[in-house]
Amino acid sequence: MLLENNLNEAKEGKRVSAVGYCVKDKDSKFEKFIFSRHAMGENDIVIEILFAGICHSDIHSAKSEWHKGIYPMVPGHEIAGKVVAVGSKVSKFKVGDYAGVGCMVNSCGECEPCKRSNEQYCEKGMVATYDCKDYFHNDEPTYGGYSNNIVVSENFAVNVPKDAPLDKVAPLLCAGITTYSPIKFSKVGSGRKVAVAGFGGLGVMAVKYALQMGAEVSVFARNKNKEKEALALGVKKLYDSTDSKAIEERFDFIISTIPTPYEITDYLKLLRVGGEMAIVGLPPTEVDPKIGASGFIWNAQKKVYGSIIGGIKETQEMLDFSLKHKIYPETEIISVNQIDEAYTNLTTGKAKFRYVIDMATLEK
Amino acid sequence: MLLENNLNEAKEGKRVSAVGYCVKDKDSKFEKFIFSRHAMGENDIVIEILFAGICHSDIHSAKSEWHKGIYPMVPGHEIAGKVVAVGSKVSKFKVGDYAGVGCMVNSCGECEPCKRSNEQYCEKGMVATYDCKDYFHNDEPTYGGYSNNIVVSENFAVNVPKDAPLDKVAPLLCAGITTYSPIKFSKVGSGRKVAVAGFGGLGVMAVKYALQMGAEVSVFARNKNKEKEALALGVKKLYDSTDSKAIEERFDFIISTIPTPYEITDYLKLLRVGGEMAIVGLPPTEVDPKIGASGFIWNAQKKVYGSIIGGIKETQEMLDFSLKHKIYPETEIISVNQIDEAYTNLTTGKAKFRYVIDMATLEK
Repeated sequence: MLLENNLNEAKEGKRVSAVGYCVKDKDSKFEKFIFSRHAMGENDIVIEILFAGICHSDIHSAKSEWHKGIYPMVPGHEIAGKVVAVGSKVSKFKVGDYAGVGCMVNSCGECEPCKRSNEQYCEKGMVATYDCKDYFHNDEPTYGGYSNNIVVSENFAVNVPKDAPLDKVAPLLCAGITTYSPIKFSKVGSGRKVAVAGFGGLGVMAVKYALQMGAEVSVFARNKNKEKEALALGVKKLYDSTDSKAIEERFDFIISTIPTPYEITDYLKLLRVGGEMAIVGLPPTEVDPKIGASGFIWNAQKKVYGSIIGGIKETQEMLDFSLKHKIYPETEIISVNQIDEAYTNLTTGKAKFRYVIDMATLEK
Repeated sequence: MLLENNLNEAKEGKRVSAVGYCVKDKDSKFEKFIFSRHAMGENDIVIEILFAGICHSDIHSAKSEWHKGIYPMVPGHEIAGKVVAVGSKVSKFKVGDYAGVGCMVNSCGECEPCKRSNEQYCEKGMVATYDCKDYFHNDEPTYGGYSNNIVVSENFAVNVPKDAPLDKVAPLLCAGITTYSPIKFSKVGSGRKVAVAGFGGLGVMAVKYALQMGAEVSVFARNKNKEKEALALGVKKLYDSTDSKAIEERFDFIISTIPTPYEITDYLKLLRVGGEMAIVGLPPTEVDPKIGASGFIWNAQKKVYGSIIGGIKETQEMLDFSLKHKIYPETEIISVNQIDEAYTNLTTGKAKFRYVIDMATLEK
């Protein structure tokens, strides 16, 4: 849903009006919010947002659970939509194309990580899609995807083919890339034995990617409730994670998507010597799982690392790979007035699928 | 110094008499100890021990600081000497050759790590050179190198050329391989930027290996006292580790030999994205440095792992490399009656070099 004057504003180099849903402070409910975005620069595009996914980190941010948020806050870093205007030097997109935006909208472009297209590890810090000061635009706050449009550098938007299911594309830009990137980084492929620890939204995506890349995949879950679902996906075995000490199998790669307390060394013991463990789940600070120098020494030659989303080039690769192989998250489409309810369901564990807001439900 | 009847015992398939220095319990001083070793099997050799290095872990073991020790205990896992008898199927050694023994004297030989010559990571557990039950010999305790001889499988002894400085070879078998192995594992080579954290005995060896392999090496030390020594070795820069937060340099590989409290993430911050950190130093349990899932996530794509000595094949490779390039630890030769004094000096930090016992000083 585009505001009528958006296109004129963009063409005339003016700030672009926007309407979205925001929280005014960490305890408030969502409400409609009229604001504006920076003018379209020569390398920028304007996207009419059609779908915006809700990520659990939206909740952490909206409630200031990780750090004090910038309010009013318009969350949303899983964005898919249609390109409605392009700057004079834009080459990747033309009007009418589809585009996606994930967790970041800019980075310094000059440090070593940026030069290697690891913009997410920018040494100056990436400009996050929302709740962040945009150092390319006078430190004004960024506003996310629960909105009718976004103005973004073409370098931070990915190309989406017109026949792609946009409601599935949106959540891939966070949940997809978060699991795809470490699986590629650790060179998971045919014949490799992989374990996915935690079988929620991220875990399911990790399973799908690892299987598609030819690995033999097992799952560790808190209980056996989802065993049937796992086996149907092609998982070799679903283990109850409380049994991890008794398991004799050894894995080449383990990815932990666990968001609750656990022992890192319980999983290191299950790696074969030379294996690697990637951590993408982040339990709350007060139960942050820890490993000591002794834990590394007594589980030697087993590498542990953390991973955050992926670079833009890799995000495009992930999207192309996902579309080619039809690897999608399970989604439930909601309207803008259901955001509060979705947050409650996500917080209480009632949510079964990824919520995606249909921005057509946003009134002008 | 060989007991007169040793050779006959070995040839006749009898247990081999030995004399060494032991502690009777965790609080006692060293005293002379008459004992016997298992008979020489067809794949075994008998080594007359000429030099035995003193490793700091000897002290931890003798004092039951890591686990309750098996007493009487004859420590010593840095052994160099002369082959005086060989079993009927021995092919690697003949009488008169020189040989070395490090931290282990056997392993299961059947698990995946053993098959890859990672005997130190044997899933059944390696048979340590001392203070260990030998599951190949009715669980009898193993006795280490502070002794006149050792009976060992040829597969757990390394070949030492006759012109090698044996007092230097002995400590290489622990301090050398401990640093060489992770440097190789992380593929340190020409053009790589390496930092060595901790500049004691292990740190100096790490510096020498990394330099020889073509890396640019910096050192992190608790103070600048050893700056001159480091620069003389070819180190680019010695940093005071208390300044680590202010350092802008980024490294491809960091090896921590630090035996005291520190923050693992202080060093992760100094790795470039994609870099690796190996931990070989093990601070006391009560100050075990820890890193949480959050530490990995906020220093993403930086791998951490622990490392313990090396496999036998790699130990031979390390020894050949060290001899070829004259990479040795600094040593101070002592007599058997100076062991207690050496332990005191090592415990109080007074020791400047690696102590190596000249076993010729052992009276029959």
